[in-house]
Amino acid sequence: MGCIIDGCPAGLELTEKDIQKDLDRRKPGQSDITTQRKEDDRVEIHSGVFEGKTTGTPIMLLVRNTDARSQDYNHLKDVFRPSHADFTYKQKYGIRDFRGGGRASARETLARVAAGAVARKYLEEKAQIEIVAFVEKVKDIGSTVLIEDVSQKDIDSNIVRCPDKKAAEKMIELIKEIGSEGDSVGGVIRCVVRNTPAGLGEPVFDKLSARLGAAMLSIPAVKGFEIGSGFAGTTKTGSEHNDSFIVKNGSVRTRTNNSGGVQGGISNGEIIHFRVAFKPTSTIRKQQDTINTDMQSVQLNAVGRHDPCVLPRAVPIVEAMAALVLIDNYLLQKIYG
Amino acid sequence: MGCIIDGCPAGLELTEKDIQKDLDRRKPGQSDITTQRKEDDRVEIHSGVFEGKTTGTPIMLLVRNTDARSQDYNHLKDVFRPSHADFTYKQKYGIRDFRGGGRASARETLARVAAGAVARKYLEEKAQIEIVAFVEKVKDIGSTVLIEDVSQKDIDSNIVRCPDKKAAEKMIELIKEIGSEGDSVGGVIRCVVRNTPAGLGEPVFDKLSARLGAAMLSIPAVKGFEIGSGFAGTTKTGSEHNDSFIVKNGSVRTRTNNSGGVQGGISNGEIIHFRVAFKPTSTIRKQQDTINTDMQSVQLNAVGRHDPCVLPRAVPIVEAMAALVLIDNYLLQKIYG
Amino acid sequence: MGCIIDGCPAGLELTEKDIQKDLDRRKPGQSDITTQRKEDDRVEIHSGVFEGKTTGTPIMLLVRNTDARSQDYNHLKDVFRPSHADFTYKQKYGIRDFRGGGRASARETLARVAAGAVARKYLEEKAQIEIVAFVEKVKDIGSTVLIEDVSQKDIDSNIVRCPDKKAAEKMIELIKEIGSEGDSVGGVIRCVVRNTPAGLGEPVFDKLSARLGAAMLSIPAVKGFEIGSGFAGTTKTGSEHNDSFIVKNGSVRTRTNNSGGVQGGISNGEIIHFRVAFKPTSTIRKQQDTINTDMQSVQLNAVGRHDPCVLPRAVPIVEAMAALVLIDNYLLQKIYG
Amino acid sequence: MGCIIDGCPAGLELTEKDIQKDLDRRKPGQSDITTQRKEDDRVEIHSGVFEGKTTGTPIMLLVRNTDARSQDYNHLKDVFRPSHADFTYKQKYGIRDFRGGGRASARETLARVAAGAVARKYLEEKAQIEIVAFVEKVKDIGSTVLIEDVSQKDIDSNIVRCPDKKAAEKMIELIKEIGSEGDSVGGVIRCVVRNTPAGLGEPVFDKLSARLGAAMLSIPAVKGFEIGSGFAGTTKTGSEHNDSFIVKNGSVRTRTNNSGGVQGGISNGEIIHFRVAFKPTSTIRKQQDTINTDMQSVQLNAVGRHDPCVLPRAVPIVEAMAALVLIDNYLLQKIYG
Repeated sequence: MGCIIDGCPAGLELTEKDIQKDLDRRKPGQSDITTQRKEDDRVEIHSGVFEGKTTGTPIMLLVRNTDARSQDYNHLKDVFRPSHADFTYKQKYGIRDFRGGGRASARETLARVAAGAVARKYLEEKAQIEIVAFVEKVKDIGSTVLIEDVSQKDIDSNIVRCPDKKAAEKMIELIKEIGSEGDSVGGVIRCVVRNTPAGLGEPVFDKLSARLGAAMLSIPAVKGFEIGSGFAGTTKTGSEHNDSFIVKNGSVRTRTNNSGGVQGGISNGEIIHFRVAFKPTSTIRKQQDTINTDMQSVQLNAVGRHDPCVLPRAVPIVEAMAALVLIDNYLLQKIYG
Repeated sequence: MGCIIDGCPAGLELTEKDIQKDLDRRKPGQSDITTQRKEDDRVEIHSGVFEGKTTGTPIMLLVRNTDARSQDYNHLKDVFRPSHADFTYKQKYGIRDFRGGGRASARETLARVAAGAVARKYLEEKAQIEIVAFVEKVKDIGSTVLIEDVSQKDIDSNIVRCPDKKAAEKMIELIKEIGSEGDSVGGVIRCVVRNTPAGLGEPVFDKLSARLGAAMLSIPAVKGFEIGSGFAGTTKTGSEHNDSFIVKNGSVRTRTNNSGGVQGGISNGEIIHFRVAFKPTSTIRKQQDTINTDMQSVQLNAVGRHDPCVLPRAVPIVEAMAALVLIDNYLLQKIYG
Repeated sequence: MGCIIDGCPAGLELTEKDIQKDLDRRKPGQSDITTQRKEDDRVEIHSGVFEGKTTGTPIMLLVRNTDARSQDYNHLKDVFRPSHADFTYKQKYGIRDFRGGGRASARETLARVAAGAVARKYLEEKAQIEIVAFVEKVKDIGSTVLIEDVSQKDIDSNIVRCPDKKAAEKMIELIKEIGSEGDSVGGVIRCVVRNTPAGLGEPVFDKLSARLGAAMLSIPAVKGFEIGSGFAGTTKTGSEHNDSFIVKNGSVRTRTNNSGGVQGGISNGEIIHFRVAFKPTSTIRKQQDTINTDMQSVQLNAVGRHDPCVLPRAVPIVEAMAALVLIDNYLLQKIYG
Repeated sequence: MGCIIDGCPAGLELTEKDIQKDLDRRKPGQSDITTQRKEDDRVEIHSGVFEGKTTGTPIMLLVRNTDARSQDYNHLKDVFRPSHADFTYKQKYGIRDFRGGGRASARETLARVAAGAVARKYLEEKAQIEIVAFVEKVKDIGSTVLIEDVSQKDIDSNIVRCPDKKAAEKMIELIKEIGSEGDSVGGVIRCVVRNTPAGLGEPVFDKLSARLGAAMLSIPAVKGFEIGSGFAGTTKTGSEHNDSFIVKNGSVRTRTNNSGGVQGGISNGEIIHFRVAFKPTSTIRKQQDTINTDMQSVQLNAVGRHDPCVLPRAVPIVEAMAALVLIDNYLLQKIYG
């Protein structure tokens, strides 16, 4: 798996460790509630860094995988897995590589996390922008988390990555139970971006909310996105929903933050917060009805080692995609500054 | 207001009437529950059409506005309207044109509807793809609509554009009541695309769902997007949620459609359906707390003629944006065909 | 004719006069040696400027044409003019608008000049970058011009826009003579960019030289581009051709400038200079062999009012395209600064 | 060195051999007149090909280099080589990786040749489009070659890649002589594209001529580009230069081809032909004046193994870039077909 990062400004201190720590949060086999595939996912920087600093030229990363078992996929050669990309890729390209690791495989998110780690480091060091995401809901188990000060340490303090400890315990229990039945669950990840300067985002088609939405909806298994009050906000009146401007310690702030930090598509300096809906993993061990490539009805009992719930491993992916959108807008804004 | 459409293939029959009919569905003053501003919005085709057919060169449209009253905005010169783009534009550009009609004004959606009308005509005539959107919810008033056969005629049969007549009556009543109080409401628009061929959409970052999401989230006042089962789907298990493949009349279909017609980011031939969350209009007549450009607290009583609910007029905008995303992917797919 | 300029930073003072002066240098009928069509070409700024300054939002310009005579083109309806775009457009789109003013018409360069005028103003005021172009050669009449200090005043001191007065006289005489025969001539325009900071241009595919070349080769009638020593430089040895670095008044300079101010695709701070080859105008009054749309041999005697030599009017087009490339790279470089 | 090819349609038969044969034509050490560095440049296909055919997903290629000697570059650490990118990269990024292999190194052209080989195969098999380039001139030694039927076999029949055998002998002799003096020479490569359908290229900014020009000017050491009659065409009159349309064997053709196969920016079905000017290699062994990074005058005696003339190895690069431009336009044209 390779990844090329173009456009990273020169002069950022960067080592493989900076990237590895996020890859480790995404990697399979990290806990009892993830897939038990063992993928080592060691990153190597092959270009773009010289004497410990980025040079402004493309950064090429390679991640070697020591535990790919293509034979795990042989039984899927002639069958379309329900709600997976098998059928649509076949229709689009007329040909399909049934082994794992293609572009429809969630394995491609490894490159997103690697690139996102570099972007996060830049944003933190050069602009003090902090990005954290956490699991807010698994199936119907919700949680309560304060977005003003939730930290990555809190989030990573348990294997499901939900900082509400009580809720986390229930989530873990549920995932184990559902997993042992060969089934899967979905849920909601919430992401929080603190300390964004006002003015990021472009008018009309490239609003910050539109770019964040596109980034999140491009993650495998994502079916929904809402920023600020989102769908719940549609049940309020304008006078209830509007965020009044106030002056606080000499700066312009809003009393509430239903806007989620974005107004008219442009950041207003408040905390950016949004939610991402993940459907339950489509590959399950439970028997399912489907058809094969000869259009005959068949029963599918997928084997292989799949995640009963992708959310704990998706947390760094959400953070990475948020970082990639923000750095793009942050660098762009320098033109107007 | 001008609009240039580039990339429309040659040979499509096109007249001003094809575009005007969608502009009339978006225009202000069309009913009791929209803003009473009178904008004529007559479209003129200035290039790209020769002897009634598109020539493959850019289509330039001009829409003249006969009722712009810049003086309506004079009282807003020094004040930041809550949840509007006044503050963020000032922060971004350091300068702000406080009159209406700028890029943060919903008036820019006129160009989207004009361009979308051309795209819809192409999709209908060349590919039999049908796009319809309707108001599904206003504040907490929901509705029941069958997405398999809801038609534009049903949708346009009442002024709120909800094909469930009973729900529509309640919605109209609510909008009038809230509007008379100088307040506003939001809601949910649902969009349905029928007869899309399988194979549209691109892997990884340009998934059809991501492109649709970005398009919808770029519409003013939109704060959420979900495709297929969306946020509700996160509470199901994989075995409940997966769409089994079946063969029906010789073609591959799915038994359910929780995927919303998109799997792995690519259309599977089923109905594409998604929901778009609109917050309540931020400009209201009710008195609000805010600050002025000198950072002093002030009370704002916006005058002017604003929509108490943007959803009825937003229906053609949602359809237009869907059409623009689909035509892009449809034309792109010709390369692989 | 409309033109939308997106991405111009806020805060630039801009009036219609700033744009008009370059349009007047491009407009038809400006002298004895250009086409005698009278096009008034008055520019109006319709958006993006507020109280005399750009607002950072798109600048929409309209230029009204008072002397378009579509009937001038009626005799060309069924015939393919040699070396013109009639045939290729018909092949590409299957349909062709035979009247003037389409995208293959040099009239589209009006928009380039308008946009370029804004870019030049920005570059001059914010970065002291000066761009001047002049006619260096008409057919085989060359000239001698010092690129270090040639000014726009010198260039505009005669109607052919060649600052070498003696050569200019011969060029004007030749153009009149050839024009009176119903024939046309081509030539070479040279462009000089002074005071560019080092560091503009991007590696690999977007080298400054590649971007300048593409911009120039996109101008109608251009068939060649060379930067620095260009084709003549291919006859030197490396030791003769290399530009030695020296230190002069405390800054790094080069002794010679065969590189034309660009090394490895990136500006080095020296004067950027390049040449653009214009073929003779293809529309001539002299009788020519060609075929009609029924593939029959015909004789064409084009009427209408065409330029015997496009170069004098192309000078502001070359400057405009250079300005558009430079501003793009200048703004981009702010990201790395 | 890695290379990712995105957008290659599914179903093309592809093996490593298809790519290797062009890499071997570019590789160092292939003859007496190229650099004597030994780089094996073995290509491996890592994704995008399944059971011998492309799958429509990105094709990842890796080329391993067995003879990189970073220590060859140590003496260049503190010095700016004349007419090389050392100084401009330092100015742009503030940091510079002085070892070989960066983006300013001609070694990046390896990826261009690899990608171009795939494009050429597609164009040949699916559209019978043939692309051949050859060395037309070295310093002031010209040659005579018929572009209608020159073949790759003729071109590769000698080590300088000039199909005019007599001229080739003189060129080889000159390169050896100049190389033995530690100096270098430049020259002109001509490229011929046969059997292009009419209609490729886009109006205004993306003319086929502009895209080809940009592609060629992005190749290291290129300082000029001309299509068709180019600079020489500027000395003709319109009546001499225009290409009359005729009908030949039932198809529309032109009597002459001064246009170089492109009219109004769009291919007309004739042979596309253009010339590319390469300056003499800037890295020479001969002693040169320059400065070091402390701005002191120094004498540079570059060691290392450099090409006395890059043209023989640049032939496949020119062909590759032409193929990449053409495939892009060929696939795009399918939308309008």
